Amino acid sequence: MSPKITTELLKQLRQVMKNPKYVQEPIQAYIVPSGDAHQSEYIAPCDCRRAFISGFDGSAGTAIITEQHAAMWTDGRYFLQAAHQMDNNWTLMKMGLKDTPTQEDWLVSVLPECSKVGVDPFIIPADQWKRMSKALRSAGHDLVPVKENLIDTIWTDCPQRPCKPLITLDLSYTGVSWRDKIVALRSKMAERKVMWFVVTALDEVAWLFNLRGSDVEYNPVFFAYAVIGMNTIRLFIDGDRMMDPAVREHLQLDSTLEPEFKIQVMPYGSILSELQAVGAGLSPKEKVWLSDKASYALTEAIPKAYRYLTPYTPICIAKAVKNAAETEGMRRAHIKDAVALCELFNWLEKEVPKGTVTEIIAADKAEEFRSQQKDFVELSFATISSTGPNGAIIHYKPVPETNRTLSVNEIYLLDSGAQYKDGTTDVTRTMHFGTPSAYEKECFTYVLKGHIAVSAAIFPNGTKGHLLDSFARSALWDCGLDYLHGTGHGVGSFLNVHEGPCGISYKTFADEPLEAGMIVSDEPGYYEDGSFGIRIENVVLVIPAETKYNFKNRGSLTFEPLTLVPIQTKMIDVNLLTEKECTWVNEYHQKCREVVGAELERQGRHEALRWLLRETEPLARVQ
Amino acid sequence: MSPKITTELLKQLRQVMKNPKYVQEPIQAYIVPSGDAHQSEYIAPCDCRRAFISGFDGSAGTAIITEQHAAMWTDGRYFLQAAHQMDNNWTLMKMGLKDTPTQEDWLVSVLPECSKVGVDPFIIPADQWKRMSKALRSAGHDLVPVKENLIDTIWTDCPQRPCKPLITLDLSYTGVSWRDKIVALRSKMAERKVMWFVVTALDEVAWLFNLRGSDVEYNPVFFAYAVIGMNTIRLFIDGDRMMDPAVREHLQLDSTLEPEFKIQVMPYGSILSELQAVGAGLSPKEKVWLSDKASYALTEAIPKAYRYLTPYTPICIAKAVKNAAETEGMRRAHIKDAVALCELFNWLEKEVPKGTVTEIIAADKAEEFRSQQKDFVELSFATISSTGPNGAIIHYKPVPETNRTLSVNEIYLLDSGAQYKDGTTDVTRTMHFGTPSAYEKECFTYVLKGHIAVSAAIFPNGTKGHLLDSFARSALWDCGLDYLHGTGHGVGSFLNVHEGPCGISYKTFADEPLEAGMIVSDEPGYYEDGSFGIRIENVVLVIPAETKYNFKNRGSLTFEPLTLVPIQTKMIDVNLLTEKECTWVNEYHQKCREVVGAELERQGRHEALRWLLRETEPLARVQ
Repeated sequence: MSPKITTELLKQLRQVMKNPKYVQEPIQAYIVPSGDAHQSEYIAPCDCRRAFISGFDGSAGTAIITEQHAAMWTDGRYFLQAAHQMDNNWTLMKMGLKDTPTQEDWLVSVLPECSKVGVDPFIIPADQWKRMSKALRSAGHDLVPVKENLIDTIWTDCPQRPCKPLITLDLSYTGVSWRDKIVALRSKMAERKVMWFVVTALDEVAWLFNLRGSDVEYNPVFFAYAVIGMNTIRLFIDGDRMMDPAVREHLQLDSTLEPEFKIQVMPYGSILSELQAVGAGLSPKEKVWLSDKASYALTEAIPKAYRYLTPYTPICIAKAVKNAAETEGMRRAHIKDAVALCELFNWLEKEVPKGTVTEIIAADKAEEFRSQQKDFVELSFATISSTGPNGAIIHYKPVPETNRTLSVNEIYLLDSGAQYKDGTTDVTRTMHFGTPSAYEKECFTYVLKGHIAVSAAIFPNGTKGHLLDSFARSALWDCGLDYLHGTGHGVGSFLNVHEGPCGISYKTFADEPLEAGMIVSDEPGYYEDGSFGIRIENVVLVIPAETKYNFKNRGSLTFEPLTLVPIQTKMIDVNLLTEKECTWVNEYHQKCREVVGAELERQGRHEALRWLLRETEPLARVQ
Repeated sequence: MSPKITTELLKQLRQVMKNPKYVQEPIQAYIVPSGDAHQSEYIAPCDCRRAFISGFDGSAGTAIITEQHAAMWTDGRYFLQAAHQMDNNWTLMKMGLKDTPTQEDWLVSVLPECSKVGVDPFIIPADQWKRMSKALRSAGHDLVPVKENLIDTIWTDCPQRPCKPLITLDLSYTGVSWRDKIVALRSKMAERKVMWFVVTALDEVAWLFNLRGSDVEYNPVFFAYAVIGMNTIRLFIDGDRMMDPAVREHLQLDSTLEPEFKIQVMPYGSILSELQAVGAGLSPKEKVWLSDKASYALTEAIPKAYRYLTPYTPICIAKAVKNAAETEGMRRAHIKDAVALCELFNWLEKEVPKGTVTEIIAADKAEEFRSQQKDFVELSFATISSTGPNGAIIHYKPVPETNRTLSVNEIYLLDSGAQYKDGTTDVTRTMHFGTPSAYEKECFTYVLKGHIAVSAAIFPNGTKGHLLDSFARSALWDCGLDYLHGTGHGVGSFLNVHEGPCGISYKTFADEPLEAGMIVSDEPGYYEDGSFGIRIENVVLVIPAETKYNFKNRGSLTFEPLTLVPIQTKMIDVNLLTEKECTWVNEYHQKCREVVGAELERQGRHEALRWLLRETEPLARVQ
C-alpha cells in the first residue's frame, strides 16, 4: 500500500483557507471531521473528504490542516493503516495513548496568537463544536463556521450524492408499524415536554419509517431528515423515490389520514430553512429535541433557550431493544450466515493448501456464499480478510497492493457480515489451515477465554455494558497481553452494523444500561504487529438470566449467541481452559450442529454439513 | 434509633427563607450540601448542618428544603441509616436506583414557576453550582447565593470552629520536604502556564506543608487555605498555632529565606478578599488554577477568563503516589494495626460466648488495643462494629439505642482503622464466633472470591481503577447477588482515609489511572437487609507486576496487600474456591504469620500469636 501524495492538495487547501470567496477572514486551521451531515460512521463517496485530503480511509479519523502542519487523529484500530496510507505531510495522532495531545491541545500548541479555526458547520456535531470552541476561545482563538466545504472546493472530481430506490419493510420484519412508532415517539416527547423532535441520524429515519435504502454502502440507509411535531410529520428526502407506488402505499401518502399522521414530503436541502422557520415560530416553553451529536448548523437553527439536547435520542434507545419479530429475523439471518461460512471454510480448507487463494478471493467467495442465501441484500461492512501480518491491522481491507495469499503457515482472520432483509450479521473467525504454533494457540485461547467470560457473564438488570469490558481482557492481562479496541458494539436489525446506545467498551461511559432484547457484539482479540491477528466475534442477544438468588428481584441478564459458526478447535490449547469454559465451547458447538446442521441439511449442502460435524467434535480436557 | 423530630426546625428554616434580613427576595428552596467550605467528606461538628436539619448524619447526603417538601439524596451505603434517622417530614432519595430523580429534576418537578433556589456559596462546589444553575435556569428558575448560611441562623447551639495544635512531620515520615513539594508544584504550574494555585482541600494543605492537625475528627487536618504563586506562598490559618516554636521552625518562619519560599501567614477568614485582590490584579494570560470542586464563592473571586479549573489538582495527584518513606510507613502502620486486631479477635473469641460484649464494647476494645501501638494518633473513622442485622447497614456506627450484643449465633462485621504518625489503616473483617450457616459461608466465599479477583488482578499500566470493579462482583453476580457500593477508595498516608484521585468503583469514570505507589482499598461485600452484612477489606499497594509478555513493554501492575489480618477460614466454603484462590488465601495467611507473627513475638503478645497461628492454618481443598 503506497501512501497518497498530498503535497499539491494541501497547497490548494491552504490557498482556499485564505480565499475571501470562501472565508470572511483567512483561517489558520481547517478541521475535516470523519462524518457526513448526519454524523454517520460509514459515509457515501461524496462525503469521504478526510480520505480525499489525506489518503487515510478508515472509518474513524479527524484531520486538521494548519498553515504548517497536517495531523490525523485516529484510534488503535487504525494506527497501522493510517501510517501506511498517509505521506510525510501528515502527523499521526494515536488516540488513547498517554502522550497523544487532544485536537484542542494540539491546536493551541501550534497556532499563532488569535487564530481562526474553520470547520463545516453541517459536518461537525454540536457537542464537538462546543468543546472545541470553548477550548480555543480560552486560548484566545476562534472556531468559525465555513459555509462552503473547503475540501469540496478543491475536489474537482467529487462524486454525486447517491439517491437510490427505497425498500419498504412490512410488519413481519419490523414488528411495529411506522404509525405506532410515531405514536410511541410522541409519547416520549410529551413525557419530556418537547413539541418537536428532529431526526438527523440516517438509521433513525430509516427505522422510524420502516424504510431502507442503499445510499451508503453496507448501511441500508438513505439521505433524509425528519422533523416530527405533535401534529405533523415532515420527511426531507430527494429524488423521485417518493414516486414509487410501493413507497407511497407504505407511507400512505395518497390515503385519507388523520392530519397528525399525514407525512409532508419536502426537499432534502430545505431542512435548514424549515428548521429555522420552526425555530422562529416557537412560543415560550415549546422545546425542540435534538441529539447533541446533530450538526452545529441544525442545532443553531433552534434558539438556545428552546433546545432540548440529549446524547441518545428516544429513537436510538427504542431501536436498540429488538422486538420479537426483529429478534426472530436476526436469528434467521444468523443461521443463513452460518451456512454461508460453513461452505466458505470447507472450501478454504480444500483450496488454501493449493496456494491459489488470496485474501480478495476468499472475501469474494464469502460474499458469493452469502448471496446465495434468502433475502440477502449486501454486505454489512467491507470484509476484513487478512492473513499473517495483515491480520494485525485491525480494520484491514484487502486491496491489490496488499493482497496476500492464504497459506498453511499463517493465521487467517475473517471479519465479515451481511445485510439480509431479516437481519444484520457480523462475525469474526480466526483459522489456521496448517499447524498453529504453541504461541499462536496460547494467544488464541486467551482471546477465547475473554470471549466466553463476556458471553457467559451474568449481571444485574441496569448494568452498563462498559462494566463487562474487563472480563474480556482478564485472561490476556494475566499474561501481559491486551488489545487496543473495545469489546463490543450494538448491532442494528437490517440496519447499521454499529449502532448505539449500548456497547461493551472501556472507552464508553455514556452507554445506556443493557436490557433484554438489545444486541451487541462480543469480540476480544489479540494482535502482534507484523505477525498475526486473532479475533473471535459473535453477535449476542441480551436475555434474562436465571440465578440462584435473582438480585433481590432486580432480575438478571446474560447473553445468548446469535452467531452459530464453529470456533476452530485446532487453535485451542485445551489445557488452558477451565472445565466451565470447556463445557461452554462444547455446548456452543452442539448448538451449531443442531441449528445450522439442520439448515445445511435442508439446503442440501452435505459437504459443508460434514465439515460442520468435524469442526464441532467435543473438546476433551486432560484432567 | 429514633428519628430526629424536625417539624419545628423546618418551620424556622422556611421562615428565614423568606426573611429579608438574609435573602434579598424570598427563596422557594434551600440546598444544604454535605460538605464544608473545603468540600471535605468528614466535617467538624460546626459544619454538620445537614445532620442538624435532618437528623441524618452519614458521611454523604444533600438535603433540599422547599416550602412544601424536604428531601434527602444519599447513596446505597446509607439507605437504611437515613431511613432510620429521619422523620416523616423527609423523603429519602435513593441515589443510584433507576427511578430516583436527580436533585435538579426533582426541583423542577416541585417548584412553582420562576422560583429562586438558595445555597451557601462557600459550601457548594463550583462544578455542582454550574450544573444545578444551568438545569434550573433552563426550567425558568434561578440558583442564588445566600451569603449567610441559613442553617446557622436557626442553629442556636452551634459549636465553635475547632482550632487545635499542629503536628510537624519530618522527612523520615514524608520523604519530601515542603520546600521540594512547592518546587514540584510550581513546575507543574509552569507546565500548564498558570501563575497561581489555590489550595482549598484541607488534606492538600496538610500534605503540602508536611503538617497535620486534629480540627476534624478522624482526619488529621486543620482549617486552612493556601495560595501559591510563582514567587509567593500565602497560608491562611487561624489561632495561635503559628506561635508554636516547632511549627515556626518547621515552616522556617523566622529564618532568612529566598523570598519565593517565605511563607506569609494570614487569617483564615481573609481568603476571599485576598483572592479577590489576586483576581483583580491579574494581567492577561495570568491564569489561576483551582479545583473544579472549590467553592463557588472562591471560584467566583477569579474572573472567568483567568480561571484554570481541573477535576484533580496537581497536589491531589502527587499525594496519591506514595514515595518510599510513605510506603514503608504505611507498611509499619499496617503491621501494628494487625497486632491490635489479633489481640482483639483473640479476646472476642473468648468473651463473646459469655454474652457480655456489645458492639460498643468491641469497638472500644479495638481502639484500646490500637492505642497501645507506637505512634498511634486516633482512629481513622468511626468504627463500624456491627453484629447480625446491624451489619447490613453499610456505614453503621453503634450507638446506645442500636447497640447489640455479639453472640455465637450471628455474623460480626468490624470495619475500623487508625491514624498512626507513619500511616493510615482501614480494614474490615467478618467473623463468626459460633457455627456459620451454609448460606452465610456461601455468601462470604463469593465476597472473598471477589476480593481475591481484585487483589490478584494483573492489568496494564494506564488502567483506571473503575475497570477493575466488575472483577469484585463476578462471583456474586453469577448467583444473583450484588452490593450497592464501590469496591475501593484511595487511602492517605497519615491523612484522610478516603482520598482521590483513584479508586475502584463502577460509579467513578473520572478517576486517574492507577500507578505504582498508589494505595487503595479492596472491599467487596454482601448485605442481607435485616439479617447480616459481610465485607472483606484490605488496603493494597499498587506495585509493578511480572507477566509473561509484559504488554509490549507498556508494563503491568498488580496489588500487594498492606493489611495483614487473617481472613476467618471458618467462614470459607473451600469447595467454592478454585485452586488459584485457595493458594492465594494460603499464601496471604503465610505472610500474616511471618510478618505479624514476628511483631507479636517482639511485643511479647504470645496469646495473640497463638490465635494468629491457629487462624492461619492452610486451607485444604477437597479434590
